[in-house]
Amino acid sequence: MQHFDNDYMEGMHPLILERLAATNMLKTTGYGCDDICESARSRIREACDAPDAAVHFLVGGTQTNATVIRAMLRPYEGVIAADTGHISLHEAGAIEAGGHKVLTIPHSEGKLSAEAVDAYIEAFRRDEAWEHMVQPGMVYVSFPTEYGTIYSLSELEALSAVCRKWSIPLFVDGARLGYGLMAEGADVTLRDLARLCDVFYIGGTKVGAMFGEAVVVPRAESIPHFFTTIKQSGALLAKGRMLGIQFDVLFNDGLYLRIARHAVEQAIRMREAMVAKGYEVFIPTPTNQLFFALTAEQLERLSSVTTFSEWEHLADGRTVIRLATSWATREEDIDALIAEL
Amino acid sequence: MQHFDNDYMEGMHPLILERLAATNMLKTTGYGCDDICESARSRIREACDAPDAAVHFLVGGTQTNATVIRAMLRPYEGVIAADTGHISLHEAGAIEAGGHKVLTIPHSEGKLSAEAVDAYIEAFRRDEAWEHMVQPGMVYVSFPTEYGTIYSLSELEALSAVCRKWSIPLFVDGARLGYGLMAEGADVTLRDLARLCDVFYIGGTKVGAMFGEAVVVPRAESIPHFFTTIKQSGALLAKGRMLGIQFDVLFNDGLYLRIARHAVEQAIRMREAMVAKGYEVFIPTPTNQLFFALTAEQLERLSSVTTFSEWEHLADGRTVIRLATSWATREEDIDALIAEL
Amino acid sequence: MQHFDNDYMEGMHPLILERLAATNMLKTTGYGCDDICESARSRIREACDAPDAAVHFLVGGTQTNATVIRAMLRPYEGVIAADTGHISLHEAGAIEAGGHKVLTIPHSEGKLSAEAVDAYIEAFRRDEAWEHMVQPGMVYVSFPTEYGTIYSLSELEALSAVCRKWSIPLFVDGARLGYGLMAEGADVTLRDLARLCDVFYIGGTKVGAMFGEAVVVPRAESIPHFFTTIKQSGALLAKGRMLGIQFDVLFNDGLYLRIARHAVEQAIRMREAMVAKGYEVFIPTPTNQLFFALTAEQLERLSSVTTFSEWEHLADGRTVIRLATSWATREEDIDALIAEL
Amino acid sequence: MQHFDNDYMEGMHPLILERLAATNMLKTTGYGCDDICESARSRIREACDAPDAAVHFLVGGTQTNATVIRAMLRPYEGVIAADTGHISLHEAGAIEAGGHKVLTIPHSEGKLSAEAVDAYIEAFRRDEAWEHMVQPGMVYVSFPTEYGTIYSLSELEALSAVCRKWSIPLFVDGARLGYGLMAEGADVTLRDLARLCDVFYIGGTKVGAMFGEAVVVPRAESIPHFFTTIKQSGALLAKGRMLGIQFDVLFNDGLYLRIARHAVEQAIRMREAMVAKGYEVFIPTPTNQLFFALTAEQLERLSSVTTFSEWEHLADGRTVIRLATSWATREEDIDALIAEL
Repeated sequence: MQHFDNDYMEGMHPLILERLAATNMLKTTGYGCDDICESARSRIREACDAPDAAVHFLVGGTQTNATVIRAMLRPYEGVIAADTGHISLHEAGAIEAGGHKVLTIPHSEGKLSAEAVDAYIEAFRRDEAWEHMVQPGMVYVSFPTEYGTIYSLSELEALSAVCRKWSIPLFVDGARLGYGLMAEGADVTLRDLARLCDVFYIGGTKVGAMFGEAVVVPRAESIPHFFTTIKQSGALLAKGRMLGIQFDVLFNDGLYLRIARHAVEQAIRMREAMVAKGYEVFIPTPTNQLFFALTAEQLERLSSVTTFSEWEHLADGRTVIRLATSWATREEDIDALIAEL
Repeated sequence: MQHFDNDYMEGMHPLILERLAATNMLKTTGYGCDDICESARSRIREACDAPDAAVHFLVGGTQTNATVIRAMLRPYEGVIAADTGHISLHEAGAIEAGGHKVLTIPHSEGKLSAEAVDAYIEAFRRDEAWEHMVQPGMVYVSFPTEYGTIYSLSELEALSAVCRKWSIPLFVDGARLGYGLMAEGADVTLRDLARLCDVFYIGGTKVGAMFGEAVVVPRAESIPHFFTTIKQSGALLAKGRMLGIQFDVLFNDGLYLRIARHAVEQAIRMREAMVAKGYEVFIPTPTNQLFFALTAEQLERLSSVTTFSEWEHLADGRTVIRLATSWATREEDIDALIAEL
Repeated sequence: MQHFDNDYMEGMHPLILERLAATNMLKTTGYGCDDICESARSRIREACDAPDAAVHFLVGGTQTNATVIRAMLRPYEGVIAADTGHISLHEAGAIEAGGHKVLTIPHSEGKLSAEAVDAYIEAFRRDEAWEHMVQPGMVYVSFPTEYGTIYSLSELEALSAVCRKWSIPLFVDGARLGYGLMAEGADVTLRDLARLCDVFYIGGTKVGAMFGEAVVVPRAESIPHFFTTIKQSGALLAKGRMLGIQFDVLFNDGLYLRIARHAVEQAIRMREAMVAKGYEVFIPTPTNQLFFALTAEQLERLSSVTTFSEWEHLADGRTVIRLATSWATREEDIDALIAEL
Repeated sequence: MQHFDNDYMEGMHPLILERLAATNMLKTTGYGCDDICESARSRIREACDAPDAAVHFLVGGTQTNATVIRAMLRPYEGVIAADTGHISLHEAGAIEAGGHKVLTIPHSEGKLSAEAVDAYIEAFRRDEAWEHMVQPGMVYVSFPTEYGTIYSLSELEALSAVCRKWSIPLFVDGARLGYGLMAEGADVTLRDLARLCDVFYIGGTKVGAMFGEAVVVPRAESIPHFFTTIKQSGALLAKGRMLGIQFDVLFNDGLYLRIARHAVEQAIRMREAMVAKGYEVFIPTPTNQLFFALTAEQLERLSSVTTFSEWEHLADGRTVIRLATSWATREEDIDALIAEL
C-alpha cells in the first residue's frame, strides 16, 4: 500500500537531521538572533538577489499568513484573495481573528487574475458607499495554488503591476513554493518574487523541513518592528536556530530546488502512468499535486493500492481526489504504484 | 423637488421631540438605569409577549450588529449571512474587527432560505477538514432585507427550526423592523420574533427615532453580562434615558407600528403611480423601499423630479434605483411626486 | 434634596433643544456629511485656530477613546496612560478589545508628568528585551483628569515635547474639556491643544449636549481613512446632523466655554461653603468636580441634603466623596445646598 | 568561558534526537492525530492521573498562553496575573491582541497570593462601577515564577479554592514546570496540578525539548473545540508528530522529571559555591534560576568567567543578574565555573 495523501507525512530531509545532530549541544542565543540563522538569511538573500531584504523565520503556514497580514494592514483594510485561497477557507478564521476581512474573488483553477483584481478595486473605488466598506489593502495569492496550479511570470507581473497601480502590497503564500518554482513549464524565479512582491514566504514544512517558513520582505522597511509583531502573534520560536539550521541546509548548494524538482518529476511519472490507465485528470497541474476525477469503480480500485485525499463529489457521481508527491517520495514508491494500478 | 433617498433624512417623530422637551431638565441616573428606560423596556416586553426578555438600548445598527455578534460567538465561530447582508458588505468590516468571519450564502431577493442554511451547515459538518474551518455559530437575517423583501412567518419558522436543529442562535437585524411587520401581506409579529429568535432588534433610527435600536433577548440568560460587553463596545450611551424616551414614546399606544404602516402605504401609492407611468419594478417589495430598473431616459426624467439612490447598473444599460418612504413622508409629498412624474 | 452625583444627569442645553425643534423635519444626507455638520466643523476649526484640522463627531467617550486609539496604533504598540486613566479602569477593556495594551504609569493627582513618561520610554528603549514588549505608541491624558485636576500650559508643553522627542502622538481625552479650559487658574486654550496634541476631543456629553464628542485632528493626514474606522467601530451616527446641531449651537457665540465657566463658578461657591462648614477637601480641584474626605458623621449629614458619588474608603475610616456641578446647575441649587449644610 | 544565560541555549535531549532519527521517514497523518501523539497523550494523562484530560501540543509559551486565554475567556473578562507575570510584560501584548486585559496584582517574589486574588475579586464585586470594568475571568500563575520561586502545595490549594469560590478557572503556565516540580522543597506533583487547575501546561522548550508545550485540560469539556481555536491561533503544527515524539520520549521512564532534577542539583551546587565566594543571593530560589545582586567589581569578575542575564539595576549601584542551569548543564560546567570564580 502506498501513501500519497499529502506532502507533509515524513519528517525532514536527512541532511537536516544530520545538521541537527551535529549542532545539538551548541549553545546559542535565542529567538533567531544566532549565527546559523544569520547564515541562512544570507543564503536566502543571495538566492533572491535581494541584498536588503529582511528574512524572518516562522513555524507554520497559517501562522505566517495571519502574522504577515495583520502586520501590514491598517484597521480599515482587508485582503483580496481567491475564494479558494487557504486564508479564505482552511485557516479557521485566523485572518478575521486578527481583525481583517478576506475579500474574495472567484478563482480560475485556484488563481486570481490581474484583470479580476483590477476590476474589483476599480468597482470598490467607484462605489458610492466605498467609505462604508472594507478597503482592499493587500492582494494574497498562493504559489502554487491550493489546486496545484501556478502563475506564469507574465501573470505575476500583471498582478504586481495592478498592485502598484493601486498602491497596495502583493503577498505570495509560498507554502509549497519549491514545487511551484520547479513545476513543469514554470518561468518564475526567487528573484522574480523578490522583484514583484512586497512580501512572500518560502515554505519549508512541505519542502524538506520538519517545519518552518522563511518570510522575505524585499524592502525591509515596509514592515516596521515585525519582530515584535511576530512575538505578539506567538510565532517567535525560542530556540530559533532550529529554523536557521533547516533553511541553512535547504539553501546550501541548491538543495531546496533540487528536492522540489524531484517531487515534480515523480508527480509527472505518476500522472503519465495513471492517464495511460484511463484515469481522467480533473485539473491539469504542473506541480506535485495531481487531481483526478474517478468513477466509483476507479475509486475502489485506487483505494486498494494507495491512500489519497478526497477533494470533492461531482454531480455526475464521480469523486475528485488528490495525490501528492513530495521531496520524500522515492522512485520505487512510484514504481510500486504503477505496478499495482 | 422631492427627496426619497432613504429613510433617515429627517429628525424624529414630533411626539418624541415633545417628550424630550418635557423631560429635558429632569435629573436621572445614567447608562439606561433610569425609570424612563424601565418603562420603555416594559412596553417592549409587553408588545413582544416576552415577560422575561432582556431589553438593551443601543445607538445604531452597525454597532448593534457588531456588539450582539461578538457577545454571542465563541472565537472559533462565525456568523452565517446572505452575501447581500448588511454585515457582509456595508459595515466596514465591523464583524471581522470583532474577530469573526461572516460566512456568506448566496441570497435570493436578499433572503436566506432555511434549506440553504441547513445545507451549508450539513456540508460543513461532513467536511473532513471541518475542524480547520470556521464553525457556523449563528444565523443572521435582516427583516426586512436590504432589498426591501420580507420573510413570511413560515419561512421564519423554518429558519428557526434549522437553527434549533443545529443548536445555533438566530439573530434578526430589525433596523427597519416596523416596515417589515407592517408590510403588505406580512404575517410576522413581534411575538413571533420573540418566540423564534434568540436575539433581535427593533430599529428606531429608521422608524421614527433620532437614533436607537432596542435589542430584545427573549431568554435573558443567553447573553451573560451583556451590559459590560455593550460598554466595552463603546455602545453604552451615558445619558441613556435619551434612548428610553424614544422607545417609550414609540411603544406607547402603537405609535411604532402605526407610523411604519403609514410609510408602507405611501410606498404603495408611489409604486402604483410609477408603474402606471411605465416604470418597471426591479424587485417586487412590500415594504417602504421600492426598486425600479430605469432606462436612461426614465432616469433623467425621474432625476428632475426627485432625489433617490442609485443601486446597480444592469448589463442592458438600465439603472436600478431605490426610492424610500419613511414615517416622515407626507401624503402631499407622494401627491407632488405623482403630479410631476 | 439636591443632586450632585455627576455632570450628565440632565438632557441638553435649551438652545440645542430649540435648534433640534427648528430643524426637525429638514431632510439632510446622513453620516455627518450635511451642511449643519460642516458649519459646526468650521466653528470648531476657527475656535482652535486650526484651519486644516479634520473634525469628526462621535457619540460617546469610551467609543471615542477606543476608536481613536485603534486608528492610530500599529499592532505592536500600546498606549501610555495614568493608572487612574479612564481607559485603564472604567471602559470595560475597550482598548484591549481593540488589540492594544494600556501601559500604565502611576499618577500624581490623576496626572501624568512629562518626566515620568520620558523615563518610562527611556527605560523601555534601554531594556534588553524591548523587542519582546509592547512599544509605547501614544500618550493618553485626560483634561481635566478623572480627579478633577488640570494640566498647566507648561505641563502640557512638556508632555508634548516628550512625545515629539520620541515621535509618538499625544492624545487628550477632553470628555470634560470645557470644565478644564474654564477652570480656576487654567492657562490652556483650544489653540494650545491644537498646537500641542496630535488628536484631542471636545466633550459634549458632559458639557451641554445630549451626547457627542468632537474629535479634532490638527494634521488631518495623521489618521488616514478615519471615517471608515469610525464606521467599523460602530461609532458613525446615521443621522449625523444630530451631532452637528449640538456642536454648532455649542460653538456659536462662545456658548460651550460660557456654560463650562458657569459650572466651575458654582463648584467654587459650593467648595467655599463646604470648607467653611468644616468639610475637608481631599484633592484640591479647580474644575466642576469636588472631592471631600468625610467623617461618618459628615457623610450622614451630607447624605440627608444631597446625593453624590462615593469614591473611596480611607484607612482612617473616612469616605472620599465627589460632588459635581454642571452646565445645568442653577445658582439656586447651590444656595439650597448651602442653606441646608 | 561558561554560559548560563538561560535554559534554552541547546538543542534537545539526545534521546529525542535518537527518536527523531528513528522515525524520520515514517509517514503519518498530520496535525497531532497520529499514533505517536496518542502515545504521548496517554503517558501524560497517566503521569497526571487524569484519565479524562484533553492533552494538546503547542509549539511555544507565548503562543500557548495567548491561545489558552482567548479560548477560555468571554469578551467581558480579563485574566488576573502578577505584575511580573510573563503575560504582563514579555509577550509583546499577545493577550491584548486577543482582546483581553491582563489585570495585574503586585507580586511577592514573583508569586500571587490567594489572599490578594480573593481581595481583588471581592473589591471588584463590591465596586459600584463593576459593570463598567473588566471582569476577572481567570487566574494565571507561572510555576515556577519568572523569579525562579515556586508555590507550595498549600499555596496552590488556596489559590484553587479562591478560584472555585468565585467560579473562575485557574491556569498554570508551566513553561519551566519540571524545574518547579523538582525544586528544593517542592511538594507539588503533576497530579496536584490536574486536581487543582482548570488548565496547565508542561513546558518542553526549556526542559529537554527542541520546542513544545503540552497543554493539559483535566476536564476536557471546559474548552470546547479547542483544536479549532489552536488552528486559528496559528498554533497547530502540521507535522504534529514532532511534538508527540518529544513528549513521548520525555514522559517515558520519568525522563522529564529526572533531567529537571539534574538541572536543579547543578543550580544548588552553583549557588553554594557562589555564596561561599561572597556573592549575595538577591531572591532565594529553589529552582534552576539563581538571582544575585553584584557589586561593580563582582560583576566584572563574573563576566570574565561566564555569560548570564542582567536583570535589574538597584538604587545602591548593584546589578541583579540571573544565572540559569538546564537539563543540558554538565557537572563539569559547574566545576569549571567554581574553579574560576
